[in-house]
Amino acid sequence: MTTLADTATPAGARGLYREGLVVPTSGHAPGFTQANLVVLPRDWAYDMLLFGQRNPQPVPLLDVTDAGSTSTALAPGADLRTDLPRYRVWRDGELVDEPSDVTDLWRDDLVSFLIGCSFSFERALLDAGVPVRNIEQERNVSMYRTNRECRPAGRLAGPLVVSMRPIPAAQVATAVQVTARMPQVHGAPVHVGSPESLGIADVDRPDFGEPVESAPGDVPVYWACGVTPQAALMDSRPPFAITHAPGHMFVTDVPDSAYRQF
Amino acid sequence: MTTLADTATPAGARGLYREGLVVPTSGHAPGFTQANLVVLPRDWAYDMLLFGQRNPQPVPLLDVTDAGSTSTALAPGADLRTDLPRYRVWRDGELVDEPSDVTDLWRDDLVSFLIGCSFSFERALLDAGVPVRNIEQERNVSMYRTNRECRPAGRLAGPLVVSMRPIPAAQVATAVQVTARMPQVHGAPVHVGSPESLGIADVDRPDFGEPVESAPGDVPVYWACGVTPQAALMDSRPPFAITHAPGHMFVTDVPDSAYRQF
Repeated sequence: MTTLADTATPAGARGLYREGLVVPTSGHAPGFTQANLVVLPRDWAYDMLLFGQRNPQPVPLLDVTDAGSTSTALAPGADLRTDLPRYRVWRDGELVDEPSDVTDLWRDDLVSFLIGCSFSFERALLDAGVPVRNIEQERNVSMYRTNRECRPAGRLAGPLVVSMRPIPAAQVATAVQVTARMPQVHGAPVHVGSPESLGIADVDRPDFGEPVESAPGDVPVYWACGVTPQAALMDSRPPFAITHAPGHMFVTDVPDSAYRQF
Repeated sequence: MTTLADTATPAGARGLYREGLVVPTSGHAPGFTQANLVVLPRDWAYDMLLFGQRNPQPVPLLDVTDAGSTSTALAPGADLRTDLPRYRVWRDGELVDEPSDVTDLWRDDLVSFLIGCSFSFERALLDAGVPVRNIEQERNVSMYRTNRECRPAGRLAGPLVVSMRPIPAAQVATAVQVTARMPQVHGAPVHVGSPESLGIADVDRPDFGEPVESAPGDVPVYWACGVTPQAALMDSRPPFAITHAPGHMFVTDVPDSAYRQF
């Protein structure tokens, strides 16, 4: 019998989700990397792997499993079918269900992609004294489809999706330096200021997540976002896919420091 | 008619190789990245792509082409079938030919992998005042199979191959810092000193390349090596493969600085 009392450790948090706790993972197992999950049939896995290779800023692949495997090198004791608090199930590019367990849907031909997440660099920004407005306001970060296309890979194509954080003008350079040191969790911003040149018509109306308020003197700073592969799945419509539900990430055993360079 | 006078520029060098010049590419088009080439049938491409994802230090994938394509984003005007000075052709893991043109062997199902090369970081070492003994001695670098296994991917498995450079003890730290900034061209050393713990019985008898003499006070420093995928091909025996011939690299249009962080 597993008795895991709290969400302070990766194994503890995953144990609670496995036992039925359904909550966003923000703030759980502090100091450990959380990851986006995309699961696809083997027939589509080559396209996804190539999409990641060609678009490493939005799709930084931290691990790719063998077909049918339910475990990952990022957390050897975890079960990918049960250890996220909530999943999304997609058929032909349409969202059809949001279960908390996908054991019944698992197949021998499924390949899991674990993808870096900006939660890791938000902690690094806070450590460097840079305010993170979405955390202050207890909101999901604002995300936008842009007018930039990812480099396509086989049947997978779609726009670059970015997350935006308002950063005080005097701290933009620090935010760039801190996140540039973490290329496996999206790295340096792709764009600073000028939302219109990214094709963003109204910063207050994000395509995903929630509006986040800027303070006077803040500049909008844009990072490549892990929602990019989900946007490509929606556009490219593979017959079957599983992902994490937004904000309900896979908590790994890897310390954030492992993805911090220098 | 192409008239390309010399090897100082990437397009000039590639033009000469295309017209029949067969020489090692060391020192050609200085300041531009040179790449290892591995070409495999589409049936084996997923395994190779996954092998690179799982072993990024020895197999840093700079570009992966669409099946059948003869061009790469790293040098849009180049033809991968003709623009390397010399190729190697492999059947069932055995070297069968070393032609200077592979146009006749090209097939619609071939996928090309362009892989980072230590030539890029040797220049960075020299720029930082660190001597590179194999360049001083005009020899190929020493390379060794190690007792470390790469993480397998499908049918591909094999040992980590390392290159060794003797570095003055007082400059080992500089060599680490300089190369750590270039993760896409093998990055920081995997090992410093102690060849026996890598399973290297005799440093003077490398498995690939040539012996390189150490100066008094030099320490052997080991980097992950781009020969690693060739060793995996030899061990795993795909029915057909093309690679560059050792030292006869693909000269890209990408400046080395593009792969230098900070």
